[in-house]
Amino acid sequence: MNRRIVIAELPSGAVAERHFRAETAPLPSPGPGEVLTRTLFASLDPVNRAQMRGRTYRDGLDVGDVMPAFTISALEDGTLVAAEGGWQEHAALPASSLAPIDAGGGPLSHHLGVLGLNGLTAYFGLLDVGRVAAGETVLVSAAAGATGNVAGQLARIHGARVVGLASTDAKRRLLEERLGFDATLDYRSPTLSRDLKGCCPEGVDVYFDNVGGPLLDAVLPRMNVHGRIVCCGTLASYDADAAPPGPRAVPGLLISRRLRMEGFVVVDYADQRATAVRRLTGWVKSGELVVLEEIVNGLDAAPAAFVDLLAGGNVGKRLVRVSA
Amino acid sequence: MNRRIVIAELPSGAVAERHFRAETAPLPSPGPGEVLTRTLFASLDPVNRAQMRGRTYRDGLDVGDVMPAFTISALEDGTLVAAEGGWQEHAALPASSLAPIDAGGGPLSHHLGVLGLNGLTAYFGLLDVGRVAAGETVLVSAAAGATGNVAGQLARIHGARVVGLASTDAKRRLLEERLGFDATLDYRSPTLSRDLKGCCPEGVDVYFDNVGGPLLDAVLPRMNVHGRIVCCGTLASYDADAAPPGPRAVPGLLISRRLRMEGFVVVDYADQRATAVRRLTGWVKSGELVVLEEIVNGLDAAPAAFVDLLAGGNVGKRLVRVSA
Repeated sequence: MNRRIVIAELPSGAVAERHFRAETAPLPSPGPGEVLTRTLFASLDPVNRAQMRGRTYRDGLDVGDVMPAFTISALEDGTLVAAEGGWQEHAALPASSLAPIDAGGGPLSHHLGVLGLNGLTAYFGLLDVGRVAAGETVLVSAAAGATGNVAGQLARIHGARVVGLASTDAKRRLLEERLGFDATLDYRSPTLSRDLKGCCPEGVDVYFDNVGGPLLDAVLPRMNVHGRIVCCGTLASYDADAAPPGPRAVPGLLISRRLRMEGFVVVDYADQRATAVRRLTGWVKSGELVVLEEIVNGLDAAPAAFVDLLAGGNVGKRLVRVSA
Repeated sequence: MNRRIVIAELPSGAVAERHFRAETAPLPSPGPGEVLTRTLFASLDPVNRAQMRGRTYRDGLDVGDVMPAFTISALEDGTLVAAEGGWQEHAALPASSLAPIDAGGGPLSHHLGVLGLNGLTAYFGLLDVGRVAAGETVLVSAAAGATGNVAGQLARIHGARVVGLASTDAKRRLLEERLGFDATLDYRSPTLSRDLKGCCPEGVDVYFDNVGGPLLDAVLPRMNVHGRIVCCGTLASYDADAAPPGPRAVPGLLISRRLRMEGFVVVDYADQRATAVRRLTGWVKSGELVVLEEIVNGLDAAPAAFVDLLAGGNVGKRLVRVSA
C-alpha cells in the first residue's frame, strides 16, 4: 500500500492543515517508460503553494491530487535519484525525469537543499544574474530561508558585505553569529527605510530578492547606480490570491540608476550544474558554507511543517524524512 | 542682448504655455573656464519636463530659470559644438561641457536627433541592452517619437520583426509605409491586450519601452521566455505629479519567464559613441534609416511646440531653429 497526502481543498488566502488529507492507496503501478520509486526525503518549498492556486497555473493542482514535492527517491535496485515524487511513500515516475545522485559520502538530505535546487538557485542567481564582486554590498531577503541563507553565504565567500532581512531576532542572531552576515534587519520594522539606510550606508549593489511585494518597494531607492536585482522568488504573494501592486519605482528608477532586474530559473543552467555542485560541495566540506537544515519525520508531519514554512517558521532548508 | 525663455510657473499636471515667459536679458558674460556660445538649434525633449518638477529632482528648475535644452551652438570662432545651451540665443557655458561636432556635410540638425542623443539612445538601448537578434519580434512604444522611430528602424535593419505603438492613424501609416515597421497598434485601443496578441502572434522578445505606465502592464504578459525590456523612458509619467502604480507582473513574471528589465542612460556609453555615430551616419546615407524631423522656427515658438510634444503631437525629432 501507499501512504500519501492529497489536496483536500484548494486554499484561498493562507494555506492551512485542513487543505490536506492523508490517505492510503494501492501501490502505484508504473506505465510505459515509468519506474516505481520509493521516497526517502521530500522537500518542502514555498513554490509548491503557487501550484495550489488551481487553474491560474497550467500545472495547477486539483482536489484529490497528491501534493507535489521534489524528492530524493530510491529505485528498486537501490539507485538514488532526484525526482518529483510528491508527498507519498511510492511514486510511478517517467524514468527520463529522474537524475542519479552521487551522495559522495555526505548527508543525502543536502541534495534537496544546499546541493540541490536551493543551493543551485543561490549560486546561479548570485553569480550569474547578480554578478557579485568583492567589496560590493549584497542585500538578501528571506535571508534565513533555504535559498537566502546560501545566497548570503556565497556573497560572503566572494568578498561582499552581506546584509540579511529576516523576521525574528533568533534568525537574525543565527545569520550574524553562525553564518557570517555583516548585518541583519527585521523586514517588518516600522522604520524599515531608515534601517536599510543605516545598514547599507554605501547603498545596495545586489538585491537577492526572494520576496517581492512592499519590501521590494522599500529596497529600490537604496540601489546603487548599475545595481542588480536578482528576482528569485515572490514569497510575499504565494499565500495571496492576487499579485500585490507592482513597485512604483519601476521603470523610472531603473532608468535613472541604470538598474538591471532579472528573473531566472535554475533549470536553465543544466549545463553548468555539475560544476556548481562540485564547488558548493567544496565550500560545505571546508566549513565556509554552513548548512542549515530542519528535518521533520514522517509524511503525516508534512502539512503542518509546510503551513509553518509559508508563515516563515523555518530556518534554512526544511524537509520531510519519508522512509529510511 | 539675449532673447530667452524662462519658467514663469512650475506646472502641476500637464505643462502649458503659460508656464513659460519670453524675456530679453543682457548678453551673458562668461566666468572663469566658460565661453560664450550662440545657439543654432535647441532640442525639445520630454525629459526636460521632469526637470520642471522642482525640488523632487536634484537639478530641478525654479521660476525664472532658463528652460534647459540640448543645443547645437557655435563658438565665437565658428566652431560647432554640442552643448546644453537652453532656450536662449546665447549662453555662457563651461568649455569642458562642450563637444565639437563634425557635421560632415550632412544637416546640422541631425546631430540633435538621429545622430545625437535620440539616435544613440536607440542604438545602445536596442543593441547593447536589448541584444536584438534577427528573426526576433521587437515592440516599440512611442514608436513615432524621436527615439522610438530610430529604435524600430534599427530593429528592422538588424533583421527583426518590428511592431510599433503610436497614437494616431497618421503616425501608424507613416511607420508602416515609410519606416518599414511590420505592424503598428494604437496604444489607446480598448482591446489593446487582444491587439497585442494579434500583432505579435509569436510573442515579444524585446520591448523597447519609452513610456512605462499601464502600457507596460499590458505588454508584460506578451513577453517571451528570456525576453528583454529596455527601460528607456517614462513618458506616461512626465506630466504626472506622482509615479503611476508599478507593473503587477513585477517581479513574478520576470521569474517565470526569465525576463530581464534594464534601464540605461546614453552617457554611460561615451567610449563607444564615435563608432555608433559612424554606423548611424552610414545607415542614414544609405537610406536604410529614414530621418523624421520637425523644425520649428524661432525661440518664441518653443513653448507651444514643447507643450504639443508632451501631448504626443510630434512625429520624429522636434527641434527649434534659434538662429541661422
